[in-house]
Amino acid sequence: MWVPRLFGNLMRGYSSSSTMVLEKGHLLKLSRTFSESDVTQYSKLSFDSNPLHFDAVCARDAGFEDRIVPGMLVASLFPRIIASHFPGAIYVSQTLQFKLPVYIEEEIKGVVQATNIRLIKNKYLAKFETKCFKDNGVLVIDGEASAILPTLTIEHV
Amino acid sequence: MWVPRLFGNLMRGYSSSSTMVLEKGHLLKLSRTFSESDVTQYSKLSFDSNPLHFDAVCARDAGFEDRIVPGMLVASLFPRIIASHFPGAIYVSQTLQFKLPVYIEEEIKGVVQATNIRLIKNKYLAKFETKCFKDNGVLVIDGEASAILPTLTIEHV
Repeated sequence: MWVPRLFGNLMRGYSSSSTMVLEKGHLLKLSRTFSESDVTQYSKLSFDSNPLHFDAVCARDAGFEDRIVPGMLVASLFPRIIASHFPGAIYVSQTLQFKLPVYIEEEIKGVVQATNIRLIKNKYLAKFETKCFKDNGVLVIDGEASAILPTLTIEHV
Repeated sequence: MWVPRLFGNLMRGYSSSSTMVLEKGHLLKLSRTFSESDVTQYSKLSFDSNPLHFDAVCARDAGFEDRIVPGMLVASLFPRIIASHFPGAIYVSQTLQFKLPVYIEEEIKGVVQATNIRLIKNKYLAKFETKCFKDNGVLVIDGEASAILPTLTIEHV
């Protein structure tokens, strides 16, 4: 089970006073609440005009409680988490399954767990499970990512 | 081969004067050039501070020609293409393989091809191949998406 481990295996030894090296099983986490302004800005930037993000009536007609945050905006938590801990990380792949809608002003916890690390020349190809949860622990995005890391030393953020 | 079909099978009958219904094999396309401002805005919005997007020296040290556009920003072309043709589309999944870097001011063509369409109750679960190409036809992002479409009638954009 992944969720219990999430709360039971929280980056042991990860503090600002020590150097932490990424190992298989380690978790990197970050929470964010997406505002109406975030959705508007993202939609302007990406030209995503899907009414599910702007029109509450349309969103309710489609079976949602309210307007939903674009899934790719929520998923931006994953490269943010990886790059903030490993500046210069090169994103190789990402899979995303959008399990449940994310509503504006809901707090979402992004969790990235190292599942495999392989040395390639002088860099590291790391694979991660990438998940987003609502405040109540419900999984909203499930997937995997891989990235080339220049180092396994975790940047403190 | 996918690329030759891309240029040989371009939405036959797709014009502003006719109603077009999505069928397996149909292609939906859209090109975009990502500017420095786009990258800056996206990074502010997503809090992605990866120096590969801002620091040309860091990007060159990592083996790139210059700063690169965030992969998830390039990939935002896919939901944009799907939602602009099918307003109210609900994104279900997306896989992304970042094959090659995208540089600022490069024109990128996003191509979405319907590979499977299934009626579920009164909606449609559509699967797509999702690809991005450089101007010279080189593949930069490869993947697949699935979305629930409220209708198969293609909105003219």
